[in-house]
Amino acid sequence: MAPSVDKMLTGLIAATFTPFTREGEINLVEIGPYIDYLTEKQGVRNIFVNGTTGESMSLSVTERKILAEEWCQKAKGKMDQVIVHVGCMSLKDAQELTRHAAQIRADAIAVIAPSFFKPSNADVLKSFLKEVASVAPSLPFYYYHLPAITGVNVPAKDVLDGIEKLIPSFRGVKFSGSDLMDFGRCVSDSPPHWSVLYGVDEQLLAALAMGGHGAVGSTYNYVGCHVNKLISAFENGDLVQARTIQFKIQELLSYAMKLGFDLGVNKQLMSELSGLCLGPPRLPVMPCPPDHAQSIAWKYHSIFPEC
Amino acid sequence: MAPSVDKMLTGLIAATFTPFTREGEINLVEIGPYIDYLTEKQGVRNIFVNGTTGESMSLSVTERKILAEEWCQKAKGKMDQVIVHVGCMSLKDAQELTRHAAQIRADAIAVIAPSFFKPSNADVLKSFLKEVASVAPSLPFYYYHLPAITGVNVPAKDVLDGIEKLIPSFRGVKFSGSDLMDFGRCVSDSPPHWSVLYGVDEQLLAALAMGGHGAVGSTYNYVGCHVNKLISAFENGDLVQARTIQFKIQELLSYAMKLGFDLGVNKQLMSELSGLCLGPPRLPVMPCPPDHAQSIAWKYHSIFPEC
Amino acid sequence: MAPSVDKMLTGLIAATFTPFTREGEINLVEIGPYIDYLTEKQGVRNIFVNGTTGESMSLSVTERKILAEEWCQKAKGKMDQVIVHVGCMSLKDAQELTRHAAQIRADAIAVIAPSFFKPSNADVLKSFLKEVASVAPSLPFYYYHLPAITGVNVPAKDVLDGIEKLIPSFRGVKFSGSDLMDFGRCVSDSPPHWSVLYGVDEQLLAALAMGGHGAVGSTYNYVGCHVNKLISAFENGDLVQARTIQFKIQELLSYAMKLGFDLGVNKQLMSELSGLCLGPPRLPVMPCPPDHAQSIAWKYHSIFPEC
Amino acid sequence: MAPSVDKMLTGLIAATFTPFTREGEINLVEIGPYIDYLTEKQGVRNIFVNGTTGESMSLSVTERKILAEEWCQKAKGKMDQVIVHVGCMSLKDAQELTRHAAQIRADAIAVIAPSFFKPSNADVLKSFLKEVASVAPSLPFYYYHLPAITGVNVPAKDVLDGIEKLIPSFRGVKFSGSDLMDFGRCVSDSPPHWSVLYGVDEQLLAALAMGGHGAVGSTYNYVGCHVNKLISAFENGDLVQARTIQFKIQELLSYAMKLGFDLGVNKQLMSELSGLCLGPPRLPVMPCPPDHAQSIAWKYHSIFPEC
Repeated sequence: MAPSVDKMLTGLIAATFTPFTREGEINLVEIGPYIDYLTEKQGVRNIFVNGTTGESMSLSVTERKILAEEWCQKAKGKMDQVIVHVGCMSLKDAQELTRHAAQIRADAIAVIAPSFFKPSNADVLKSFLKEVASVAPSLPFYYYHLPAITGVNVPAKDVLDGIEKLIPSFRGVKFSGSDLMDFGRCVSDSPPHWSVLYGVDEQLLAALAMGGHGAVGSTYNYVGCHVNKLISAFENGDLVQARTIQFKIQELLSYAMKLGFDLGVNKQLMSELSGLCLGPPRLPVMPCPPDHAQSIAWKYHSIFPEC
Repeated sequence: MAPSVDKMLTGLIAATFTPFTREGEINLVEIGPYIDYLTEKQGVRNIFVNGTTGESMSLSVTERKILAEEWCQKAKGKMDQVIVHVGCMSLKDAQELTRHAAQIRADAIAVIAPSFFKPSNADVLKSFLKEVASVAPSLPFYYYHLPAITGVNVPAKDVLDGIEKLIPSFRGVKFSGSDLMDFGRCVSDSPPHWSVLYGVDEQLLAALAMGGHGAVGSTYNYVGCHVNKLISAFENGDLVQARTIQFKIQELLSYAMKLGFDLGVNKQLMSELSGLCLGPPRLPVMPCPPDHAQSIAWKYHSIFPEC
Repeated sequence: MAPSVDKMLTGLIAATFTPFTREGEINLVEIGPYIDYLTEKQGVRNIFVNGTTGESMSLSVTERKILAEEWCQKAKGKMDQVIVHVGCMSLKDAQELTRHAAQIRADAIAVIAPSFFKPSNADVLKSFLKEVASVAPSLPFYYYHLPAITGVNVPAKDVLDGIEKLIPSFRGVKFSGSDLMDFGRCVSDSPPHWSVLYGVDEQLLAALAMGGHGAVGSTYNYVGCHVNKLISAFENGDLVQARTIQFKIQELLSYAMKLGFDLGVNKQLMSELSGLCLGPPRLPVMPCPPDHAQSIAWKYHSIFPEC
Repeated sequence: MAPSVDKMLTGLIAATFTPFTREGEINLVEIGPYIDYLTEKQGVRNIFVNGTTGESMSLSVTERKILAEEWCQKAKGKMDQVIVHVGCMSLKDAQELTRHAAQIRADAIAVIAPSFFKPSNADVLKSFLKEVASVAPSLPFYYYHLPAITGVNVPAKDVLDGIEKLIPSFRGVKFSGSDLMDFGRCVSDSPPHWSVLYGVDEQLLAALAMGGHGAVGSTYNYVGCHVNKLISAFENGDLVQARTIQFKIQELLSYAMKLGFDLGVNKQLMSELSGLCLGPPRLPVMPCPPDHAQSIAWKYHSIFPEC
């Protein structure tokens, strides 16, 4: 059975953090409240779990399965879609995670390029993606493009060219790069049942102008409510208002970046802003220095006093 | 005397090619017709001369002076503004070119970061720019940000911070990079008499959405007429039309890039499309393989049959 | 019990390929003959298994355990030392592999820097390595330095500074980089019970001159017999002879690199030269185009007719 | 007239700093004493002037001519050879400097790859070098390979292949890179009248092992006396002694690098150690913070108390 095509993925998708206990073990009890926070406080109805923000590469295969299952279960009736990221260095592991995602009825999977042995061109990368997809042929499939971290500098457009012949369940791309010609060409040449989603939160407005269908990112965990307004303003033709919100987010994120905004700081910032107990990150991501996240949270409230 | 601030630099600015004879010497006779072509066929009313497109780094100081003078003279009454790029590796040479630009009454100068010895931070770069500007204190001054070629990865925003205290004649930036958070912050924090201009032609629409004031680029030599329509559509709130034009330009440029779109090919393409005799580039830029430019010109006409 | 320090790791260490069946599953039956080939034909008495050459990042944790166990068992009485590489993206997995390596009585383990989330400085990296080592505190531990692939550009010397306080079982480094000041400083400041091993086969002689204690690399699978002569010549003060052999290896490898010398080609070359059936690599490493390995093998025989 | 081939360039060549006055103008009066210092205190008999260390890219063409002339004149009867670097971004300027070098009877010229417009392959680079060399066909010509700064990642071996057909006066390469396979292949395939010189001072011993004929570098201005002993020890087969000296130099330079060892610091260090008044560097190279050079000089004396 081919995946239904009536469930387009659009709007905001939060790339979720993985909750840990203080001791560094995965912490399932926070997942329910996390989902409630996103839907109730941020107006976010889609999640991308076990991705980069979720520290998936620092998790064992078993941990990833347990987490994916919990996210899917707790999201039932609350989230529109749960996309489970199943990419990893090993094709074997990615296939095992894909089979599991199908079993737990994830709405879709996403796969990043393997980055230790780097595919040298689009054909190699597509061969890898195809082998992953083949073990769950009816599960909607997204390619996750993140060249700055993977070092795989293959244009996303070259990956998308002809991919539906290899992967009939292909449904789009999470494009986390700054080459907006490549992004624009993904948009302009995509069939109507694909979603071309943007993943560089600090310049989302640029991608919307270029025709992007939605956005996936870690900051939507806590600025989702504001970015929903940005998207509404954009859709209503009010570019001035959309830009005003985008500039506020840029002010926040550039402030954070000057302090050193890595995943450990980002995770702690989410704990500060949401009240959830997400715990520390796992090595090699370092825990946030105590005052960094507080300082950024303070900045957040000064920029967005209303929320 | 401070430069007048009533002459804002907006809209399209063509970064001009330097005409050479077949023997590789600068060829002044083409400059008059070149200006007429831009104003009459492309609707372009501003030029940026002796920049990257103009092969300035391959020119001697004397050649740059002769060219600057000819461009300014022939542009009189036809162009709104002529910006003369005076950046080079040597501060001494840049100062000499700046004094000359003032003498020939250029409308403004622009300076790129020196790229052999790379400034290690914004303060070093600003010290360099200040020393250049100081020899012509009333000449409007633009910083030319081109990190992919210079390797100087200092955010433009950090260069702009406090720069007007060092350079009272500072008037803006030609931002040729893909970091649109950096660009957005240049826009949002700029005083009204600065121009924040974008220089990555294939994604101009993104920069317009982010609030950019204009565009400088080499392709405006031959797609200027289309990009003027893109800008009009954008300003009229017709994003669909603006995007349609942007996508056409992306189709053209990605076609060209697959063939190998360096400055030599770009220059020959301009000769093909304009009928001007711009001659070959100078080493180390290689002449265009004969059929490349023709093939791209053919693509151009198939995408833009109307012009 | 602290690891014995009388078993210094010196001379040649072959980084072994992982044998696969034609269908792409691990193929244990080739491991015994592989060890015999190395000892009998190449004069190699140490192996580094499940490393980069062994495609460890493309293997599941279970596969890595099965392979490590087979290598250790078959090497008994034939090899001096088996170093099992246990590094991976996930600390959890690395710890599990480390415990297993202790159980199967590997002679030592080695750990590469995690490369998806890149440690930002030496302290972070050492924290990660310490957590891995802590689960098998008496197993000799080597740091595997491979900055060109991991993108972790922390000097090895900074990793080694003070590491024995964190990891009492620390015994040295596999240094696969071209910064020979960093390498030299590792050599000059190392205590006598550490081994500083070099991993860029094509310039081993340079590292020997700098005082290196041994060499780990993939090419020693098939040029080990020649490199043993290179090392002997070097130790006997016959630099001219050592250089002659090094130049031959450079001639071979630069020939291979012009053809495209990735891991898939390297693996097939080993099959050609050894007669072993190592099978194809696993995606995202691509199988060798049929004639490439043959062409390099032919070059090998023309350069080294005697062996 | 072809250049004589009996004057092989070997041993140490100091890449000289350019003396400036406090006001930042070139300062010719220090050049005579500089040469005496090198010959008398450092035992250095060859100089490479107007290179990277000499801040050539920050000098005007006129300044470079004046300096080259003064170096050649003052070196007469004292230095074996003066190599004048004439490379720059502009072919025109490089040709003018080459003609001038011939007029002032420089012993040789050297040319770096242009780095703003980067030659995309060895053929383009050789075309550029050929055009420079052609205006002084009997002047010995060296290619200056410095990929880390130029960003021109063409293997030196590919540049050398067939170059004597294009440039009959070709005599060798200053190889300032860490790829010692590329270096080794330059050595092994060079005719006897070429000099393959190494330019990464902190790992010279590695290049000597690989068969290098000499060394060009900035540190030989002040550690020349020690490196002469290193070379003697190496030539006498005393690798232990050679390595001891190399390790001392590595200790010094890594100490300097931790403090931030750019050209401004290096220049000031030379002033401290030699007593010469070399003045500040020119922007964009920043002057040395006052205590940095002193601190490194103190380290120098603690490592090398005897000199």
